[in-house]
Amino acid sequence: MSRLNTREQLLAAGLETLHARGFNVTGVQDIVDAAGVPKGSFYNHFASKDALGAEIVQLYAAKGEARRRMLQDMSVPPLVRLREYFESLNELGVASGYARGCLLGNFSIELSSQSPAIRDCLSTAFGDWTAAVAAVIAEAQRAGDVPETLAAGQLASFLIDAWEGAVMRSKVERNAGPLDVFLAVTFTKILA
Amino acid sequence: MSRLNTREQLLAAGLETLHARGFNVTGVQDIVDAAGVPKGSFYNHFASKDALGAEIVQLYAAKGEARRRMLQDMSVPPLVRLREYFESLNELGVASGYARGCLLGNFSIELSSQSPAIRDCLSTAFGDWTAAVAAVIAEAQRAGDVPETLAAGQLASFLIDAWEGAVMRSKVERNAGPLDVFLAVTFTKILA
Repeated sequence: MSRLNTREQLLAAGLETLHARGFNVTGVQDIVDAAGVPKGSFYNHFASKDALGAEIVQLYAAKGEARRRMLQDMSVPPLVRLREYFESLNELGVASGYARGCLLGNFSIELSSQSPAIRDCLSTAFGDWTAAVAAVIAEAQRAGDVPETLAAGQLASFLIDAWEGAVMRSKVERNAGPLDVFLAVTFTKILA
Repeated sequence: MSRLNTREQLLAAGLETLHARGFNVTGVQDIVDAAGVPKGSFYNHFASKDALGAEIVQLYAAKGEARRRMLQDMSVPPLVRLREYFESLNELGVASGYARGCLLGNFSIELSSQSPAIRDCLSTAFGDWTAAVAAVIAEAQRAGDVPETLAAGQLASFLIDAWEGAVMRSKVERNAGPLDVFLAVTFTKILA
């Protein structure tokens, strides 16, 4: 494996520390320490901690986009695909004992009022994610598995927000309970 | 109106500033400045900013509990009561252009890993809120308005998390769109 360059080291260390601890309690010094690079090098690569934060949202969203490839596997029925997808998202919480949550949700709460650049990146990330889930719901609707009473885009937007809320609650409760309830209600009431 | 004592001034100013700006970017100095009291007096009343934060969660939850009285008005059918209740919650966002969000949600994200005392208060607040909403859903189930496929407590927990997620997204989008979608899906698919 090739060694990460300084910029990549800062992005990887930034993603790790900002996700684990939050944006406002983490300083540039913490990030350069975690990356193992001198502090001066930070500002050679990023104009500010906000600028790094905006790139980290895009990096995290790209990881999410890679996971969403499973939503495009047409050999699996659309509702099965959606269930497997949300199950795989729920498993992301296990490693941290549900403490970390979703970086998009964390930054939405902490930074929407503070950084317009980060807020723009979050809005784009949520929009892309919603469109990807909506496409599979629309497939399920065409197959007659989900009624067309509400538009696929509305259902997708609702589900993503509800999942973010469940992740938030699982941070408080430190267990998978809210994520399990999300799956039960989603596949009994919303996508049914 | 009687003048607030120093402790009440600090709680009111703390609630206002911590809700508007967030916990970690707000210092004790900002809170005493907003309260118009000398900094030394803060520590006569609160052991730490965390201790104030825990009391503020309880104060905010008590305001929420007062609003939930409308859920007990048995002269209104249960589903109408629930709709009017969530509509009234959605209107809370208008004044800040959807920037502030819900203090319980904000603190859940920002402080669950940082302050066990605040996390305990959040867990209690969410538990009480869920129980109050579940009681009305159970009434609707007894009246035959909502199927009993899923327990009232599960549905209530899901709805509160979904509402928190919609509030989070409305912070990013700075509009009521996610809150409107929450109402549409809730009363077309979940409580139907």
